[in-house]
Amino acid sequence: MDYYSSQISKLIEELSRLPGIGSKSAQRLAFHIINMPKEQVSQLAQTITEAKANVRYCRCCCTLTDKETCPICASEKRDHKTIMVVENPRDLAAYERTQKYRGVYHVLHGAISPMLGIGPGDIRLKELMVRLQQDVDEVIIATNSSLEGETTASYISKLVKPTGIKVSRIASGVPVGGDLEYVDEVTLARALDGRSTL
Amino acid sequence: MDYYSSQISKLIEELSRLPGIGSKSAQRLAFHIINMPKEQVSQLAQTITEAKANVRYCRCCCTLTDKETCPICASEKRDHKTIMVVENPRDLAAYERTQKYRGVYHVLHGAISPMLGIGPGDIRLKELMVRLQQDVDEVIIATNSSLEGETTASYISKLVKPTGIKVSRIASGVPVGGDLEYVDEVTLARALDGRSTL
Repeated sequence: MDYYSSQISKLIEELSRLPGIGSKSAQRLAFHIINMPKEQVSQLAQTITEAKANVRYCRCCCTLTDKETCPICASEKRDHKTIMVVENPRDLAAYERTQKYRGVYHVLHGAISPMLGIGPGDIRLKELMVRLQQDVDEVIIATNSSLEGETTASYISKLVKPTGIKVSRIASGVPVGGDLEYVDEVTLARALDGRSTL
Repeated sequence: MDYYSSQISKLIEELSRLPGIGSKSAQRLAFHIINMPKEQVSQLAQTITEAKANVRYCRCCCTLTDKETCPICASEKRDHKTIMVVENPRDLAAYERTQKYRGVYHVLHGAISPMLGIGPGDIRLKELMVRLQQDVDEVIIATNSSLEGETTASYISKLVKPTGIKVSRIASGVPVGGDLEYVDEVTLARALDGRSTL
């Protein structure tokens, strides 16, 4: 790409290494950044550096936070006896947006995947087991309904059951507002299996 | 989004202001950046700052470059008597990738759009007219075949014609390898109008 100047090429290259950003998007982003006001650009660069420097894992639920303990774990309004296990902070955020869940979370940072060589020791399971030694009523497993998510769910369920703590799994089924026609077969079968009496 | 820490929220917010990056992508990018090695993050931030600080407009063709004159305008191998007018540096890059064009460029940085209030004075037209006072054989107008691109093309053509310099427009038609079925009607009509005798 020597038809751009080296500085632009370097920026495009760095941006295209980010996930979900192909070479076309990287070009668009690079030119946008170059056309942005100087203060906005330095603020962007600074925010990136600072976020990286200050963000760490919550010592309780392992989500990413810039404090010792994340706002949810630190909140007295939450029910600390109910722990929802999610794969990553984005899933935590997705559940928070529903505003329906008042318990706390545990973020695994991944899921067990024999295919990718990710075993139980590679995700934050040990930290979960330590938390279960405190007073916990229920563990809700909200890993994805992918192969890896299901494997992780059944692994956790086997670990937790001997402690006598209630273990549950979020329901699989047809998305609300979804058109049956466009829903895949596995989901349809799950929705049938999980039917409730009216 | 107070379920993320303020540093993460700030990073997500900054990233989602970039073009083509919605709130979901911004979240994914933010978490990716936080999980990147520290050196990579500081390099990214530095590249952004440096590109902004050092990139300017080529004093000849107005493309973005980190030198006084861009590599294409500075090259003795290019035909400086043929000028291709494009809307932005991405279009220049697209033509360079074809490796079929040996002339030079002129980058307008936009197109005339009465709808968006962008007039002839808002794009780099004056700079083009100055260049035409030198020895130029042909001006190839390669603006997009959108409403704005066509408006700009006919405006430039009217400006250039009195100078006696040849003005041409890139062909519109069916994309190579494209399936006729999926080509829109306007393009099909254009392809018919522009048919050549075999």
